[in-house]
Amino acid sequence: MTDKKLAFPFVVEPFQEDYTGRLSWSTLGNHILRVSSLHAEAHGFGYTYMKKHNRGWVLARLVFDIDELPQTAEPYFLSTWVSRIFGQFTDRLYSLTAPDGTAYGYGYSTWALIDYETRQPVNLEMLPDDGFHAALLDEKVPISPPTRVRVKDDKLVLKHTAVYSDLDINGHVNSIRYIDMALDSFPKSWHDERRVTRVELNFGNEGYCGDRFHIYRETLDEHRFAVRIIRPPRDGEDKESVIVRCVIHHRER
Amino acid sequence: MTDKKLAFPFVVEPFQEDYTGRLSWSTLGNHILRVSSLHAEAHGFGYTYMKKHNRGWVLARLVFDIDELPQTAEPYFLSTWVSRIFGQFTDRLYSLTAPDGTAYGYGYSTWALIDYETRQPVNLEMLPDDGFHAALLDEKVPISPPTRVRVKDDKLVLKHTAVYSDLDINGHVNSIRYIDMALDSFPKSWHDERRVTRVELNFGNEGYCGDRFHIYRETLDEHRFAVRIIRPPRDGEDKESVIVRCVIHHRER
Repeated sequence: MTDKKLAFPFVVEPFQEDYTGRLSWSTLGNHILRVSSLHAEAHGFGYTYMKKHNRGWVLARLVFDIDELPQTAEPYFLSTWVSRIFGQFTDRLYSLTAPDGTAYGYGYSTWALIDYETRQPVNLEMLPDDGFHAALLDEKVPISPPTRVRVKDDKLVLKHTAVYSDLDINGHVNSIRYIDMALDSFPKSWHDERRVTRVELNFGNEGYCGDRFHIYRETLDEHRFAVRIIRPPRDGEDKESVIVRCVIHHRER
Repeated sequence: MTDKKLAFPFVVEPFQEDYTGRLSWSTLGNHILRVSSLHAEAHGFGYTYMKKHNRGWVLARLVFDIDELPQTAEPYFLSTWVSRIFGQFTDRLYSLTAPDGTAYGYGYSTWALIDYETRQPVNLEMLPDDGFHAALLDEKVPISPPTRVRVKDDKLVLKHTAVYSDLDINGHVNSIRYIDMALDSFPKSWHDERRVTRVELNFGNEGYCGDRFHIYRETLDEHRFAVRIIRPPRDGEDKESVIVRCVIHHRER
């Protein structure tokens, strides 16, 4: 029987770091998506099952809290397990650890399963044969719940038009690219002095190639800022769409 | 003794593809830089040597010719060796092969070694102890030399301002991001119908965070286009700088 919690080994390889020499959030994010996919596949509710049933997983929320990211050449493990099924959603948790078991940090994510025919989310509690309840593991992660934020005074800090290299295999803008956009809204001097310690993302509408994004940012306090990525109205639309809302925590280097 | 030609094993992992499900040029490019670095290190002229002598390798030219890139989950080998030392330059060659030895394609690159104190390139034929002549391997790659192009009628097709996520560990815009910019200058519909089979890049000035880039493109014929990436004058500069010139070959899917 497949373990409920699976640990995947990685090494920080050159060109997987940011300019400071630590694993980039971008690479970490893609590894998070990848281990989620590998774990789901190993438990029978991954890509093979989804392709057969014309369904697909959609990431609704991602929180990752980390004291310090590993440096170039350092090995690490990214572990994942499913902790909860509630209505249309399921929670998947993560731990990022050094080979000796010391935690770099933890994360959690919430996913919905979309039926491509009806375009509606599936009730995960009512799947045939008890769905993937057998994979559930009652283990928590020791990080705070997401910040509740009322964005009051944000300003437009960056514009980006989605291009070919932003797309994932579904033809959508890769969810992790929105973390890049949030961090790219600051100049290098900001990054020289600060280290990001936590990201909280809430995903709204999907982005597509050619979409214009407006990135709005508000400073919440000395160690937190909020970002709102919206898509201004496209031809024939009368209002903007919310793509992502996020809160990012940082500290001095 | 370390083999003159080293083969590095890879697998096309999820999120290393483009939206068509094949290894992205972006990932391939970073793997090219990585195996170059690993090979140089194994032969004693890599990062450890360079750090000690305050020098660094700079990529001057990259050509990669490939019939078809491998698909998700397919294993492949990227091999590299050094074929030539001439004055201030050295040629490094590549082959990309399936596990059964079938070639996906080949590449070559030209590098200069910069002395950080003098900011000048070092004469590679005159290094102490015969430099790295012992690593030379007289094996060619069966691909055409770069296209000679006079760009006559190009037009501005994309603008990009270099951001945090574009930077490599040296704080420069990662050389491979320029391939993305060239491919990003086309909409998804172009990529839906075509497959890139060859890239030829000539690198000029380094790009830095905050730099503005203007991407100019000219259609050369049915299967080729040229791209020129320039940086308009910065404060205090009186003329633009050429960052990259490239030619890209493509065919129908």
